[in-house]
Amino acid sequence: MRAKKQNNDTIELDHGGGGYKSWELIEEIRGNMADSRRLAKKWQNCEDDAAVYNLGKQKLVFTTDAFIIDPIFFPSGDIGKIAACGTINDLAVMGAKPIGLSLSIVIEEGFSKKDLLKIIRSINNVSKESGVPIVTGDTKVTEKGKLDKIEITTAGVGLAGKIIENKGIETGDLIIASGDLGEHGIALLSQRFNCKSKIKSDCKPLNKEIGSVASYLHSCKDPTRGGLAANLYEMAEKSGARIILEEKKLPYKKEAFALAELLGIDIFSLPSEGRFIAAVSEGDAEKTLKILKKNNPEAKIIGRAEKASNKNSGVFLKTSIGGIREIEMPRGKLIPRIC
Amino acid sequence: MRAKKQNNDTIELDHGGGGYKSWELIEEIRGNMADSRRLAKKWQNCEDDAAVYNLGKQKLVFTTDAFIIDPIFFPSGDIGKIAACGTINDLAVMGAKPIGLSLSIVIEEGFSKKDLLKIIRSINNVSKESGVPIVTGDTKVTEKGKLDKIEITTAGVGLAGKIIENKGIETGDLIIASGDLGEHGIALLSQRFNCKSKIKSDCKPLNKEIGSVASYLHSCKDPTRGGLAANLYEMAEKSGARIILEEKKLPYKKEAFALAELLGIDIFSLPSEGRFIAAVSEGDAEKTLKILKKNNPEAKIIGRAEKASNKNSGVFLKTSIGGIREIEMPRGKLIPRIC
Repeated sequence: MRAKKQNNDTIELDHGGGGYKSWELIEEIRGNMADSRRLAKKWQNCEDDAAVYNLGKQKLVFTTDAFIIDPIFFPSGDIGKIAACGTINDLAVMGAKPIGLSLSIVIEEGFSKKDLLKIIRSINNVSKESGVPIVTGDTKVTEKGKLDKIEITTAGVGLAGKIIENKGIETGDLIIASGDLGEHGIALLSQRFNCKSKIKSDCKPLNKEIGSVASYLHSCKDPTRGGLAANLYEMAEKSGARIILEEKKLPYKKEAFALAELLGIDIFSLPSEGRFIAAVSEGDAEKTLKILKKNNPEAKIIGRAEKASNKNSGVFLKTSIGGIREIEMPRGKLIPRIC
Repeated sequence: MRAKKQNNDTIELDHGGGGYKSWELIEEIRGNMADSRRLAKKWQNCEDDAAVYNLGKQKLVFTTDAFIIDPIFFPSGDIGKIAACGTINDLAVMGAKPIGLSLSIVIEEGFSKKDLLKIIRSINNVSKESGVPIVTGDTKVTEKGKLDKIEITTAGVGLAGKIIENKGIETGDLIIASGDLGEHGIALLSQRFNCKSKIKSDCKPLNKEIGSVASYLHSCKDPTRGGLAANLYEMAEKSGARIILEEKKLPYKKEAFALAELLGIDIFSLPSEGRFIAAVSEGDAEKTLKILKKNNPEAKIIGRAEKASNKNSGVFLKTSIGGIREIEMPRGKLIPRIC
């Protein structure tokens, strides 16, 4: 009894993992912000990846993301790269052109200046690759032992004509993955648990890639925290759609399956930081894929949205032998601090 | 020799204090972001309190602030209140009407949910008072011992017609303080060092107050980190102005002088979180003061901008006995984590 009571009174790691407990905590936070929510009437999509404000001819899109990851340097990236990409991608999945990022860094006293500047140069490289500058920032330092090395929060603003909404999936739409998923998670976990792996983090800015197909997309998300399971589930629930994934078309490399199994982790909850999943009409699917494959030959159709009643919406897996099982919003222990 | 080398290679507390070492670190960070800076050409005022993007008829204003303070609850406020006010005020001093904030929270595992929701309700109260909603956010949780309780980063967007620039001080302008300064610093330090004090934090949203006089202001800043010394120095340097403050008009309560002396802290570097300093023409000073005094009878003229050559710009104090001494950008040990 005692243990259970403690769980209800304190914040636990699962509250930050991106699954069901995260959702519960966010609902509780929202419940305590009634006045703020009333004042936000001019804003839309506040529960999507970014919030949208109507400026007249165009729309302002605004989002934020906090990063306190372990390890801070990982195969093919670091906390700086992921912090810049994360926010750029959250603007891009909404159909916006990112125009600028803010960069807030909190550093533990005694942190290496060389490592700090390495992280800064990573952020600069993402700016160069994406064309999105850092335009404002804040830097704070905290006493030794009061933070694990470094924490970075980025926020971003973008401009859009038409917004791509999470709730936009239509019956009959095909679900596309822009490449193999979960590789950011695999790369960080391999390093943290000292497993050898050739898989590198997929972390990259997606604004140009999404921009090249944005007009075809009915709904789009980057499957970061909580992976495909949490993010496709959110799209399905908001759209009232029933999504059927095909087991033989799952967008994961063999090595990812093996490592997830070895570490006892649900592969569907592994995060990517440079991939997106999207819904497109059947008629647009082939041309969308053709464009995407220029960047990544792994891009593929992974499933389809069927007609759903409220009672049977969600994400389901059609197994190779013909069975159907639900892929639920992650409920169990998630691995925090990898995205 | 060894100690000195370490200081150059690692990040120290003073790098986050808002004084000279903070400025040095930020210059080093900027030096490693050449591509990003080149891409930011469409943005202006990136070195002011917020960055400005021209949308045509109006301007988008964007800023961020990180808060990892100790104590997190203090007389008349908490980390949530300061995080919301800090960003609202950074938009307001630029002459913008804030339209929305982002809220990123990183929480240490085991943190009390009751305390978290108390902080959330504080943020909601600032929204209500200021009329500025939280519109997007992120919540992460880190392992116990990897963070000191809670870290909050806010970013904010606002819209403006005319921008008030840091560099706008003109020769002959009078310098106004919107109320007594340093009281946020006094309140936090009193609690941290267990001194008794009646002084409460001055933390509050300034958007309505600044909005009521914005058309008169040539330059405006909220003297948060680094206090009057760092912030007025920055305004003077950017404007190429020589500002003379009068000792008998200094905007501090007697108790603030006493407590700063007791704790061995330079009173000019004590932060406020709900006050602003501004430059107005002599002709507009009286009407500006009259409006400000409705909110705070302590509002007063504290000095004047004289004609300066590059060599004698800065902030100077005219003492009661007629001497002049420079108030420099804080160089010594600052007290971090109070704003």
